[in-house]
Amino acid sequence: VAPAPVAEAAAATAAPEPAEQGTTAVLGEFELIQRIRETVAAAGGPPSRTVALGSGDDAALTTPPGTTVTTVDAVVEGVHFLRDLFPPAAIGHKALAAALSDLAAMGAEAGEAYIQLGLPVDLDDAATLELADGLGRAAATWGVAIAGGDVTRAPVLFLAVTAVGHLGTAEEAVTRAGARPGDRLVVTGELGGAAAGLVVLRDPAAADGIDLAVVEDLRRRQLEPQPRLAAGRALAAAGATAMIDVSDGLGGDAGHLAAASGVGIIVEAQGVPIQAGVAELAAATGADAIELALSGGEDYELLAALPEEAVAEATASVAATGVELTPIGVIEAGAASVEFRDPDGRERPPVGYDQLRPQGPGEDG
Amino acid sequence: VAPAPVAEAAAATAAPEPAEQGTTAVLGEFELIQRIRETVAAAGGPPSRTVALGSGDDAALTTPPGTTVTTVDAVVEGVHFLRDLFPPAAIGHKALAAALSDLAAMGAEAGEAYIQLGLPVDLDDAATLELADGLGRAAATWGVAIAGGDVTRAPVLFLAVTAVGHLGTAEEAVTRAGARPGDRLVVTGELGGAAAGLVVLRDPAAADGIDLAVVEDLRRRQLEPQPRLAAGRALAAAGATAMIDVSDGLGGDAGHLAAASGVGIIVEAQGVPIQAGVAELAAATGADAIELALSGGEDYELLAALPEEAVAEATASVAATGVELTPIGVIEAGAASVEFRDPDGRERPPVGYDQLRPQGPGEDG
Repeated sequence: VAPAPVAEAAAATAAPEPAEQGTTAVLGEFELIQRIRETVAAAGGPPSRTVALGSGDDAALTTPPGTTVTTVDAVVEGVHFLRDLFPPAAIGHKALAAALSDLAAMGAEAGEAYIQLGLPVDLDDAATLELADGLGRAAATWGVAIAGGDVTRAPVLFLAVTAVGHLGTAEEAVTRAGARPGDRLVVTGELGGAAAGLVVLRDPAAADGIDLAVVEDLRRRQLEPQPRLAAGRALAAAGATAMIDVSDGLGGDAGHLAAASGVGIIVEAQGVPIQAGVAELAAATGADAIELALSGGEDYELLAALPEEAVAEATASVAATGVELTPIGVIEAGAASVEFRDPDGRERPPVGYDQLRPQGPGEDG
Repeated sequence: VAPAPVAEAAAATAAPEPAEQGTTAVLGEFELIQRIRETVAAAGGPPSRTVALGSGDDAALTTPPGTTVTTVDAVVEGVHFLRDLFPPAAIGHKALAAALSDLAAMGAEAGEAYIQLGLPVDLDDAATLELADGLGRAAATWGVAIAGGDVTRAPVLFLAVTAVGHLGTAEEAVTRAGARPGDRLVVTGELGGAAAGLVVLRDPAAADGIDLAVVEDLRRRQLEPQPRLAAGRALAAAGATAMIDVSDGLGGDAGHLAAASGVGIIVEAQGVPIQAGVAELAAATGADAIELALSGGEDYELLAALPEEAVAEATASVAATGVELTPIGVIEAGAASVEFRDPDGRERPPVGYDQLRPQGPGEDG
């Protein structure tokens, strides 16, 4: 009897549970992993400067150029996304983008990512590979090497992303903790679009009468957010004293920055840049556009504190990355707090702190 | 009106869904994360030499001393463990140990870990903190810093672990790919214990008549596996040409090594060291002790190829770490394959490749 070939052994090892209720995934573990790898690679990112050994052994090997910046971020079906609203490619794109946004908020350069994938048996192989394609394209867009991963069965789809970035030294990192009284508060891009995009995904009729291109931009903001990696590096280089990405909503994230820095933050509510279409959509659904922009999360813009004298340079260097930088408030001495003010200087009513909850399809807890 | 204090805002932001069916988790997100951090820290690992900034900002900062070794490994309730069989502390311990075992298999020194935790609403806070305690104690045991994490709601409990190790250079890593014809195949410790331990957990009566201390060791092998970090470094230093950890079962993992190295592997089945009690338990349940040892996974021992002349030194240096090293086979030229031989030189029947499936409570796929 000839020795059992490894491929045969592997196939036997990895065959999916037979006749499991609702099973549409048919590829064995090893073949599926191989197809996922090929799909990610086919997206064609640049060759990695840091990965010495990628996926396929017990662990990956990398040669970091200096200080390493690491974040982990998981998305779970029914909590962060719904499969019937989110195309598989968008799920892959968004999971990676959300993790990369954390690297952007440190002022780091993106390097590698590792993906742990929980696959339910009712997710067919084609959908899994579309997800891998979305992930691979996003990785290629931001020059990130997918250096490893793990695939397991799970009752619902989840992606647990580990994103690794690089900096020359730890001192170059912009944490949440350095904001000083007198600094200006600035934000990249525009807010409210992701929350409005979710409204559109859930109820397309809510967008009736709004320009189709504007609506498509809202939808894309929710499905395919863009981590502000270049803008983050520009803000760090311009002397940002503290930075955070707007993932929970401006109110909540400003609160994290205020708490870490031990400062008060005053936000001029009317100065917050709001994405086109948010106001119309808010009007159509009886919501307040400014509250949507202040409390809606997932825009993945950057919120930073900057010395007054650095604002002009930062604005120019962030603009060079294709993103506008807008001053929206000031840092004050005092207990950690966030206050929203209307143009007349009056404090805006408590801004619906109960609405600071992420506006995703479920609980982000 | 005074500005809303950040703590209040955070509490409002993070309050758990009220009156969710079956909810026993009552702490808000931020308080729970804080308690998890405190619990992990209380386990009292040594101060990290690599972590410049740990959990609490957008990302962690580390200063790797050379080449970085990274692995990701997720465990999912109902797939890799059952909550009614596994105490929460064991779930935390085992998830980290399994990831560290991958670092051991590269010959790396363990450095940091990042934990993504999916928490179902029916897991009460005390259980969550017991899990964090198990994780923290395991991290302290192996000198690993928990440098970051993520907590989310999920329909079932999952832990997605990222473990990071260090090596001087990439050349020091022992991959799966370097085994050469003429090398000896060696294994650390004893096999079969984890599979037998699972039998005991599922059916305690199966262990009737077996020495209680022996049974307890089987149970602990399943619940609290020990990654062979020191043995892995000793094997690397002694000149191991290829290495893998025995997580899927000796047959499957030898197959991975054979495939990556492009060699044939002959295992002398009778020479495989089997943990005390496995034979008795196999007899009591009608199973074959050798098959349990060959096909049962999760022992987290190391399987390595070594030049013949390096075996004596490796045996001594691995023994110095408190673990026995046993030669169990040879590497041959030829197509990638694994063959199990009985003492008379006859090939053992196909070793039940269908049993190479991990012997966990569900599918590891």
